Amino acid sequence: MAPHIHRVSVYYEDTDFSGLVYHANYLKYFERAREHLLGREALVRLWRDDGLGFVVYRADIQYREGARFGDELEIRTVASLKSEFRAVFDQSVWRADGKRAMVEAEIHLVCVDKDNKLVRLPSRVIEYARRAAEEA
Amino acid sequence: MAPHIHRVSVYYEDTDFSGLVYHANYLKYFERAREHLLGREALVRLWRDDGLGFVVYRADIQYREGARFGDELEIRTVASLKSEFRAVFDQSVWRADGKRAMVEAEIHLVCVDKDNKLVRLPSRVIEYARRAAEEA
Amino acid sequence: MAPHIHRVSVYYEDTDFSGLVYHANYLKYFERAREHLLGREALVRLWRDDGLGFVVYRADIQYREGARFGDELEIRTVASLKSEFRAVFDQSVWRADGKRAMVEAEIHLVCVDKDNKLVRLPSRVIEYARRAAEEA
Amino acid sequence: MAPHIHRVSVYYEDTDFSGLVYHANYLKYFERAREHLLGREALVRLWRDDGLGFVVYRADIQYREGARFGDELEIRTVASLKSEFRAVFDQSVWRADGKRAMVEAEIHLVCVDKDNKLVRLPSRVIEYARRAAEEA
Repeated sequence: MAPHIHRVSVYYEDTDFSGLVYHANYLKYFERAREHLLGREALVRLWRDDGLGFVVYRADIQYREGARFGDELEIRTVASLKSEFRAVFDQSVWRADGKRAMVEAEIHLVCVDKDNKLVRLPSRVIEYARRAAEEA
Repeated sequence: MAPHIHRVSVYYEDTDFSGLVYHANYLKYFERAREHLLGREALVRLWRDDGLGFVVYRADIQYREGARFGDELEIRTVASLKSEFRAVFDQSVWRADGKRAMVEAEIHLVCVDKDNKLVRLPSRVIEYARRAAEEA
Repeated sequence: MAPHIHRVSVYYEDTDFSGLVYHANYLKYFERAREHLLGREALVRLWRDDGLGFVVYRADIQYREGARFGDELEIRTVASLKSEFRAVFDQSVWRADGKRAMVEAEIHLVCVDKDNKLVRLPSRVIEYARRAAEEA
Repeated sequence: MAPHIHRVSVYYEDTDFSGLVYHANYLKYFERAREHLLGREALVRLWRDDGLGFVVYRADIQYREGARFGDELEIRTVASLKSEFRAVFDQSVWRADGKRAMVEAEIHLVCVDKDNKLVRLPSRVIEYARRAAEEA
């Protein structure tokens, strides 16, 4: 299965005085990509109707090359399932014409209710990740 | 009444590639200062117990000089009352040894309930601002 | 001249615990829109080749209605010229089907060199703003 | 050697609509703590005089419990040396009266020059980390 692609522009707000994107901001890019992959409307309904939300449980990030102001980046995401309670997202940052990933991350997500109790992932997420794994 | 002073350090995260503090971040500094002035625990209780929160209604900001990485800044705040529904905060950014404000702002706050309906300001805020005005 | 339109999605990162977009983040939306209006590549070249950058000199913001997680917003921008040294951007935030602006702002920009000295706005910006004014 | 302690307040800006601190913001807390540990003035001089800056090379983060608006947190940091080119910071987030870390991270830093070339860590960082290791 081809990775999910989300495009982001690097704006003033994303950089710091070193001239490169501030390291924490890649986590924002990854999160925006996951929102689109999971479906933004579905996430809103899940929260509003069922009181459920996704929470980052673990994030392992490797920084290889810094992005710069004006860059147009691709966030590539492949989802898989660790268990029915944990989804794993392999995510990376690329320039459109890049030969290797600038930043690579493995992000683990769990689902919690309003009392912050762990719950089973929504079935559509489980099915999506299973299908992704089969097609890989 | 002497202005309320809140100190902030300029970190990597605050700057952009121009080398100066990103212009939106001064609104964060002002908001941190107002939280301390209004009392952080009181704000938590107001939200948790009464479902009330402060909302910025208007912000007029003049930028004169940009702060830099490593700067230690003073946020000076004077509160006053526009009406029982609106508090006005005159806020400015200074270097400790500065001769004039680097950034100046007038920030108007209102109080809303969970349905986003306007409510009267909490009495302690009204009293604080009245006392501040008398002593000015 | 029709306003310039830039679309933004409201992500987790944009909201605060009140459930609405954090007030400083609208300044980010406005700045992203201005970058697209002025041309992102032109901004990069201006900085890299001429050492010139745009700086916000003044921002007056009116907050009327808060945007929420999941909202898809339109940032509408109309540019004009105060002088050859100052451009003014009337910017507002709309839901696509909205009847009135949620947030409205007047943002003044100046252009500075690497020593933070004021310089004349680039001619293409002056021409753009003049043309916009004529067609208005 | 006792861990270095840096205190941070959780403000509106740090939270998202889930009511908890947005996951990327812990990286900001960790970075503020490292700036204080390494010495903010020394960092400014290193950049201004020698054109050198620290860059995050790797970050592995475990999220166990989310911090809330109003929390006063301790960021605890222990530094060590992987090589003369890489420093490792074990960092964690605690409530003052907490029994276990809310978030734990291992952050690897390298030092680069203005052309983004890897350089040896400054000697004072190497010495600090060696001394920390001996006293541990």
